[in-house]
Amino acid sequence: MDQATLTLRGRLQPRDAWQATGCPIAKAMDVIGTRSAFLLMREAFYGTTRFDEFARRVGVSEPVAASRLKELVEVGLLRRSPYREPGQRTRDEYLLTEMGEDFFPTLAALMQWGDRWLGRSGVELRHDDCGEALHVELRCEEGHRVDVGEIALVERRHPKG
Amino acid sequence: MDQATLTLRGRLQPRDAWQATGCPIAKAMDVIGTRSAFLLMREAFYGTTRFDEFARRVGVSEPVAASRLKELVEVGLLRRSPYREPGQRTRDEYLLTEMGEDFFPTLAALMQWGDRWLGRSGVELRHDDCGEALHVELRCEEGHRVDVGEIALVERRHPKG
Repeated sequence: MDQATLTLRGRLQPRDAWQATGCPIAKAMDVIGTRSAFLLMREAFYGTTRFDEFARRVGVSEPVAASRLKELVEVGLLRRSPYREPGQRTRDEYLLTEMGEDFFPTLAALMQWGDRWLGRSGVELRHDDCGEALHVELRCEEGHRVDVGEIALVERRHPKG
Repeated sequence: MDQATLTLRGRLQPRDAWQATGCPIAKAMDVIGTRSAFLLMREAFYGTTRFDEFARRVGVSEPVAASRLKELVEVGLLRRSPYREPGQRTRDEYLLTEMGEDFFPTLAALMQWGDRWLGRSGVELRHDDCGEALHVELRCEEGHRVDVGEIALVERRHPKG
């Protein structure tokens, strides 16, 4: 094979010796595994907080937006916060939680990949302080930049540490 | 708002002034927007190449595996390559393309997020050379590590460059 794959070490090699149970990718896709959920999260990072704006900007029907936002709140990516405009009834807005904010690297990685392989979009992410373009990269704790072919999948040293 | 969101600059602020047309996240989710597609890509990085192994290791039916693998080939993430074992007919295996290899940071980001927020799994990614744990991070071209609250979304300087 000339493709770059991960190196599986120890009990993980050969692959058939273990089941990918508790796979964090599977668990993540179980809780946010739809196109509309990803796009609602995108909107939250763009500063959208109100129900009707989420629905309009993502381009989904209000029932779909309601259902997905409810799921994102239940999972813990968003939280509801009441607001009230003069003469209106109290409504909820949707704000990112810490768990939600931590989802940003996944969106940034997908954005980088889509931009590279499916056609460049008209917008880009920049570091606000210095103005330079942003990218997602893989680094180890020693600070080395790491390519796919240099990665090992191993059993965790401290499974519940 | 106390949440960390991107800073939208120029024509992008206020958000209602523009449509997120050509959004690379939307385009990416259009082509690989299912749990099983993500898990088939995971398996490709684990070194799986054969149809029946993809189906078994991801835990999907053969028709679902066939349909998803066909889509991943059509999009360009995987390519078919014929192989033949003694006394058997020629079959195709599925190998990562360059476009497919470049999808790894998205999987790594999702894995990191799932591990942190949905329960740690028993495996982890390490830099094979030095043995240190791997993580996904956002950096600008100047090499600064960047947090969500320090990011601006701007119109691309060279839209088609």
